[in-house]
Amino acid sequence: MLKLFTATGTIGLACEIALEEAGATCEVIRMNFRDNAQRQPDFLAINPKSRVPALVCDHGVITEAPAILGYVAQTFPEARLAPLDDAFAMAQVQAFNSYLCSWVHPAAAHRHRGYRWADDPVALEDMARKAPEVFAAAMGLIESAYLRGPWVMGEAYSICDAYLYVVSSWLPRDGIDMAPFPIISEHFARMGERAAVKTVLGRVAAG
Amino acid sequence: MLKLFTATGTIGLACEIALEEAGATCEVIRMNFRDNAQRQPDFLAINPKSRVPALVCDHGVITEAPAILGYVAQTFPEARLAPLDDAFAMAQVQAFNSYLCSWVHPAAAHRHRGYRWADDPVALEDMARKAPEVFAAAMGLIESAYLRGPWVMGEAYSICDAYLYVVSSWLPRDGIDMAPFPIISEHFARMGERAAVKTVLGRVAAG
Repeated sequence: MLKLFTATGTIGLACEIALEEAGATCEVIRMNFRDNAQRQPDFLAINPKSRVPALVCDHGVITEAPAILGYVAQTFPEARLAPLDDAFAMAQVQAFNSYLCSWVHPAAAHRHRGYRWADDPVALEDMARKAPEVFAAAMGLIESAYLRGPWVMGEAYSICDAYLYVVSSWLPRDGIDMAPFPIISEHFARMGERAAVKTVLGRVAAG
Repeated sequence: MLKLFTATGTIGLACEIALEEAGATCEVIRMNFRDNAQRQPDFLAINPKSRVPALVCDHGVITEAPAILGYVAQTFPEARLAPLDDAFAMAQVQAFNSYLCSWVHPAAAHRHRGYRWADDPVALEDMARKAPEVFAAAMGLIESAYLRGPWVMGEAYSICDAYLYVVSSWLPRDGIDMAPFPIISEHFARMGERAAVKTVLGRVAAG
């Protein structure tokens, strides 16, 4: 059986939504980062990177959100979560998810996790100040160029949508005005209506 | 015909190597970042993110190194650059490439490109100081946990190898002692012996 390690406020939520959309039977382990559970030896044996999400499957462990999302799409083809038979369309899915993981997510992370890249309090403060601006600019490009509508890839719902949904939820959290993001806001609301998203949010709230 | 936009010192080199390994017919456009070529309207029409690599193919443009590498592997299956028929093994490939693009590459980028995430000169200096330490720690995890040998994924050469090869080349550039990286150093030397790598490096040197 699949086992997903995740934690509140992380991109693990996107993987949990994708697994729910796929109808996967999956045990979800919600880790408590306040207890530093991700740095304990039993978890480091699962993911030496000390991060979530991590998906344990029969063959081993898969880390990194884009890889987990791709794996869910590939192993539950009937859920149609990615254009598996179209190399170019699949590359567009991977490019969107790569942009989120390599640029948008780190941009947002400089607000609270600047200590990853600097030590000086002046540096941490300056990164925290600038982070919402960089994050908003990155999301502005998604708003203007990459969210085709109604879903990220157009008519077909895909793993990109769950990923974008979670990253979008960080905009108001980071004090960013949503007015310049009407398309992303509509996408976020549309996602909230999906049965899988409602189910997962209910499960998260129940703890 | 394929057309790759790349620039010296960027991860575009990994894509150029993969295309050469695949035996692809591809026009390579070497951009001059000193002239800000990546910010000119004609290039922004190709990639609004103002970055390389970007691969123009018959159906449109693919951006982001992991997506381009995956596309090359998928459209040239006879080159055997990825385990296309094994969802778990493919997820391992994507996870490795995601780690490089989302964590290792940004870690290194804080040395010279801190202005992406901060403005204060004190912050830029502190990030530049810490960057080689964060970059080396990330590569240390690859050394100890992810490079199976002789290739990243074990016996089978894959798109991960070209990607790691280029990122590895940044270690000495950033003044990082190679002594703690014997496995990565061997991998780098092994890559340098490949015909495709020699061909591409020769082409780059010729300009």
